[in-house]
Parts: sequence; structure tokens; C-alpha cells
Amino acid sequence: MRTIYLDNNATTRVADEVLEEMIPALRDVYGNPSSMHHKGAEAGAPLALARERVASLLGAQPEEILFTSCGTESDSTAINAALVANPDKKHIITTMVEHPAVKNYCENLEKKGYRVTYVPVDRQGRLDLNALYASLSEDTAIVSVMWANNESGVIFPVEEIAKKVKAAGAVFHTDAVQAVGKIDINLADSAIDMLSLSGHKLHAPKGVGALYIRKGTRFAPFLMGGHQEKGRRAGTENHSSIIALGRACTLAAEKMEEENTRVKALRDRLEKGLLETIPNSFVNGDQAERLPNTCSISFEYVEGEAILLMMNEFGICASSGSACTSGSLEPSHVLRAMGVPFTAAHGTIRFSLSIDNTDEDIDTVLSCLPGIIHTLRQMSPFWAEAMAANAK
Amino acid sequence: MRTIYLDNNATTRVADEVLEEMIPALRDVYGNPSSMHHKGAEAGAPLALARERVASLLGAQPEEILFTSCGTESDSTAINAALVANPDKKHIITTMVEHPAVKNYCENLEKKGYRVTYVPVDRQGRLDLNALYASLSEDTAIVSVMWANNESGVIFPVEEIAKKVKAAGAVFHTDAVQAVGKIDINLADSAIDMLSLSGHKLHAPKGVGALYIRKGTRFAPFLMGGHQEKGRRAGTENHSSIIALGRACTLAAEKMEEENTRVKALRDRLEKGLLETIPNSFVNGDQAERLPNTCSISFEYVEGEAILLMMNEFGICASSGSACTSGSLEPSHVLRAMGVPFTAAHGTIRFSLSIDNTDEDIDTVLSCLPGIIHTLRQMSPFWAEAMAANAK
Repeated sequence: MRTIYLDNNATTRVADEVLEEMIPALRDVYGNPSSMHHKGAEAGAPLALARERVASLLGAQPEEILFTSCGTESDSTAINAALVANPDKKHIITTMVEHPAVKNYCENLEKKGYRVTYVPVDRQGRLDLNALYASLSEDTAIVSVMWANNESGVIFPVEEIAKKVKAAGAVFHTDAVQAVGKIDINLADSAIDMLSLSGHKLHAPKGVGALYIRKGTRFAPFLMGGHQEKGRRAGTENHSSIIALGRACTLAAEKMEEENTRVKALRDRLEKGLLETIPNSFVNGDQAERLPNTCSISFEYVEGEAILLMMNEFGICASSGSACTSGSLEPSHVLRAMGVPFTAAHGTIRFSLSIDNTDEDIDTVLSCLPGIIHTLRQMSPFWAEAMAANAK
Repeated sequence: MRTIYLDNNATTRVADEVLEEMIPALRDVYGNPSSMHHKGAEAGAPLALARERVASLLGAQPEEILFTSCGTESDSTAINAALVANPDKKHIITTMVEHPAVKNYCENLEKKGYRVTYVPVDRQGRLDLNALYASLSEDTAIVSVMWANNESGVIFPVEEIAKKVKAAGAVFHTDAVQAVGKIDINLADSAIDMLSLSGHKLHAPKGVGALYIRKGTRFAPFLMGGHQEKGRRAGTENHSSIIALGRACTLAAEKMEEENTRVKALRDRLEKGLLETIPNSFVNGDQAERLPNTCSISFEYVEGEAILLMMNEFGICASSGSACTSGSLEPSHVLRAMGVPFTAAHGTIRFSLSIDNTDEDIDTVLSCLPGIIHTLRQMSPFWAEAMAANAK
């Protein structure tokens, strides 16, 4: 059975071009970059190139790039650094729809005596900017707002927010794990202090991430120990994966236009086709600015997990929330924050495309999913009730 | 020029067998193990196998293994967990010769109000057990003692220490990054609560580690966010590297005997040959129980960095301290703790072998190094002074 992989916000396939540079690094370049011999030196040069490549995609300087093990570590590192650098400030601002990497870290900080403001979003998933600005105070150490939401795909105006936050004297961090590689980012022109990204969201392997730290930003390491990354992140560098991340960043730059034209057109066709053929369905965030690859669509009176299982029979891979929360059957915190009605939140599917997807992939979903939803609704007592109420 | 790689305590070559299992995982098994579809399920099964394999090498249960990004993260995770689980205890015991991953983390905790005891070693690098036991108190939250030292190769009696520490009511952790794969470890029979290991020290790639956490040990995550690793370590799993680590552990079990016979014999021949041909030289820890692969040898009145550079001209890779501290020209904290005289500490070289090494490798070192030391000493004012003093 052919796999129709539409779960790219959970993780992406490692691109062939990326693998091609990674495997020789893995096989032959086995020195420790910290070592004083030719095998160490041989390992150091491609690390420097990878740093340049990541910086280039972001409009940053190489020395502003710190390599980490994942987006989660980048997020923890950023928030921790701001708090250590500003020990007298005890207030953090973030949003109600952040990834668990930021949300759970902040919730834990509340137990340690920090005050955290979680800024709400509207029904379209757009951030309440007035609420954010109103909560800024002299006690605010850091504001952490994601660039794009992993579930809805809604893009937040982080560049605009960063300017206001800087003017108020706080540090601004953005979890851009879902944005990097999908939309243009130019940090040189922005007021953003720190930005997190993750390799496996842009066709590099799992287990590598990066944190952009604007030159001059006060910093404290999260992982302490050896002197790697100029003392900013201890632990031997994940050499081959960093090389892979560098190549993935150049690939993302090359494919950015395709992502925003061909991939976006596929996504739009998918949405239009599903809305036309499946009654009682709607797209979350359809009026907001969104990532070109993401479609969060709610089907009333059905269970998302059941839809996933039935789609999987046709080889279709998608998600019923973010992969990180799919262990639970609760509607995700993002859909709840957006006020998606309970009857629809449970039946929400996230399709997330990539440059690997084709028209044929979309055709398959459009041919299978209406039947799946129909079948499930026939078995749903809630659907029968709703139909009966409508008929009255 | 042939590479003679004798720096395996810094990092090892990824074994062919390991690469063979890793590359298909990297190329084809691209799902997120957290995802509810066939690509997710496909990714989950090899993770489970890797966990079994790592557990098997340690004599542990699979559910006692937590995957991390490196040894440093494992160490921080272990110490942090013990402190969070015992909030009223403010005392930590460790040694003067720990890897920076433990040493620097503990030094930072001192700034946060913890009291840290650094247990000394003798001239042979052996731990002062009486001092360790005398410092145990009701206030001691955790004792962290490395299994084997990365520079001297000296093995500490961690199983014996663990029993005493447990009896005193504290948590016992060991950084076993240099021991795992080189000596037999059976945690089922021990009192050890937590144990750190790192993939790239046993022929797996850089960027993956593990932490053994004995069942029943109170735990708190260091990386917070998603629900991965049963909520014990957030961040998408470094899938292909974890698979590689699993294979590296089975390989280590297969090669353990060779490590302790053939590799040890190579190391012994290297030491004997150098001591016989180079005057004013001695092996650090030669009277202590040591790893079979490690040789720390001091050459008086020469600079280690100069030796490394000249050996490198012959393709020989070694280290003048641990790779993690080689950015500095100061004698390492390990050699200082052992009381190696200043004139010899500066001229200390660590050779660390692996199953990849051959008799030919040792022959090359034995043929080159006496001439290198002789040449350097001819240029050394300290050597001239010492010889003049001797002649009197």
C-alpha cells in the first residue's frame, strides 16, 4: 500500500539531499571536533559550514546559532537564559496555544514562584495582542510567542510583538519550529532576541535543533559541562545531524517558493474539496494568516482517532492534534483555546503537507475521507441526535 | 597517510554494524513514534528493541532506560531528579576528578545554595573512600561518582560505594560513560540508582545517550514538554541514533572479551614499550585498577600539545587531557587532583584504544614517539636545566 504522508508538522522524511551529506559524515568523519588532531580538525570544518547555512536561512550571523538536541531543548534554553540573566524579574508572558515545550516548562516555573500570563486567542486562533501588551510590566523577564501554531498553522505577528516587547525592556523569544523552512524569516531586520528551530520539521533527522541568540543577548547555558559551543551548550556535538540540519536549511531556502505555491495549492484544494463533500465540517483558522502547508479541519459528531484509524487503512497518515499530545483523547489545548465547540474539537484532523506531497495524495484523501466520515457518523449517537434536532 | 586513531575516550568511530542498522532507519522509518498511524507504529517497534538492547548490556529492565541526547544531559537529569525528589536535602557528594558534565553542574549548584563535597583521589587516582563515607549525612541528597575516569582510566568501586550510600539514605548516581562497553556491568545485582552512558563512546554516533533509572527511584524530568519517554524526557526521540545505540550495545557485549584481552594487551605493550624507550616517563594510575583501553602517560619537561601536533604528522591521534578540556593549556583537573607534578602534568598524553586498533598501530607509536620526545626535549629549557641539575 502506498503511504500518503500528510503529517509533516509531526515530523518530516529526511530528504535525499540531506542524507547524502549526512552519511559520509557519519561513516568517515568520526573525530571529536574538540580534539587536537587531524580527525578533530576534519570534524570541525563541516560544523562551521552547517552553522553558516542555518544562519543564512534565518538572516542571522553564524555565531548567533547554537546547536541543541531538539526544539524542546532550544525552548528551555531560551527561557532559562532570560530568567538567569534577569534574576529580579519574576513575570513571563506566553500564549494559551504554545507547544507543550514552552507551555509545560512555564507551568513548572509557576511552581517555582514565577508569575505566568497566558495570552488568549480568538475563534480564528489569532492572538489577542492588546491583552499581550497590557500584561507587559517592568517585572516581565521574557515573552515567548510561537511564530506559527503547530495545530492550526496560524501565524502570529512576532516581528511586531518583538518590537513592543523590546521597548518594554523584556527579552523576546519565539518558538519557530513550525515556521522555519515554510515562510521567509529575516532576523537581521527584526527585534527578536531568540528563536528555536528543530531539524526534523524541515527534512533533517530527529535529534537536532538550534537556538538563534541575537549577538549581545545575555545568556546562560542550560546544559552545563564541557566547553562545546563556546561554553554555551555542553555535550559533544551531534556532528552528523548538525551537518544534516545545515543541508536541510539550504534545501528549505531552495524549496521555499514551491512550498508557498505548489504545496499551498495542494492544501487549498484539499480544504475546498473536503468542505464541499463533507457536511458539518469547517476549517480552523481559515480567516487567519496561516502556514501554507497546514489544514486543521473539524468534522462534527465524529471521533478524530477513529478517522485516523480508518484513513490509515488507505495509507493516509495525519494527526488528530499535535503528535506530542496524541497520547491523550482530550481535545487539544489549542482547539480549546480557540473555542472550537466540543462536538467538533473531538473530530478535528490536522493535515500537514510538505514538498514530498503530490496531487495524487490529495486525490486519495478526497476520494476516501467523505465515505469514512459518513460511515462513522452512521455509528455516532451524537450525529443521530443532531440530525433529529435539525429535522424538528 | 594512515590514521592511527588512539583517542577513543574522546569519541569512537561508528561501527559498520551500527551504521548498517541506522541508515535504513534514517532513510525509510521517518514517522514520529508518537503518531497514530502506520508510519508512527513502524517507528515505535525499533525503539522498543533498542531499549531492550541497552538494558541487556547493563543487566537492567527496558523500562529502566531513558534515552537522552548525550552523557552530559544524562548527568544533569540524574542530579536534578535527585534534588527535586528530595527538596529538603542540600548536600551533594561527588569527586575531584569527575567529568565537567558533573563537576561544572555541581559548581553551579553551589551558587544556588547547595553544599558540595568533592572527594579527593590519591597519587594513583584512587578515590579516598573514607573521606567519601565520612562526608555522608542526613542532608546528603545524592552521591555522584564516575565508574571509570576518562583521563586516567582508573575504575572506582561504585558498587561498593552505592551500598553504603543507599544505607545512608541518599541517591547514588554514576557517570559510567567511559565504563559501559569496556567492563562488565550488572545493575540488577547492584544498589546503583542511576547510571549515565553515551553512545559515541561505544561506536554509536554522537548525539545520543541514556540514563538508567532503577525502578522505584523518584524522578523528575530535566527536559519538560511533550509526553515522550513516558513523560520523563520531552522532545521527539532521536530515532535513528537510539536504534544505533541499541546495536552498539549488543556489539559491545559481543566484543567485551576482545576488549579485555586483545585490546588490553595492545595497551600494555604500548605502555611497556614507551616506558622502556623514553626516560623520565611514567604511567598515571599504573597501580590502580584501570580500564583495559586507557593509558595516561606523562613525559617530563615537554608540552603535551607539542607532542600531539608532532604525532599528528605521523597520523597518530591522541589527547593531552580529556577532549572536553583540551581548549585550555592548563593541566587538567584530574592530573592536578592526582598530584602529578607540574613538570609532568603538562607533558601528559592519553592514548585510548578500541576494538578497531591493531598491532601495527602500536608499532607506529613505538617507532615515532621516542624520537618526538627526544626532539622536543632538545628544545626545552626545562629539560636542559633538569639534566644539568642531575649531572651535578
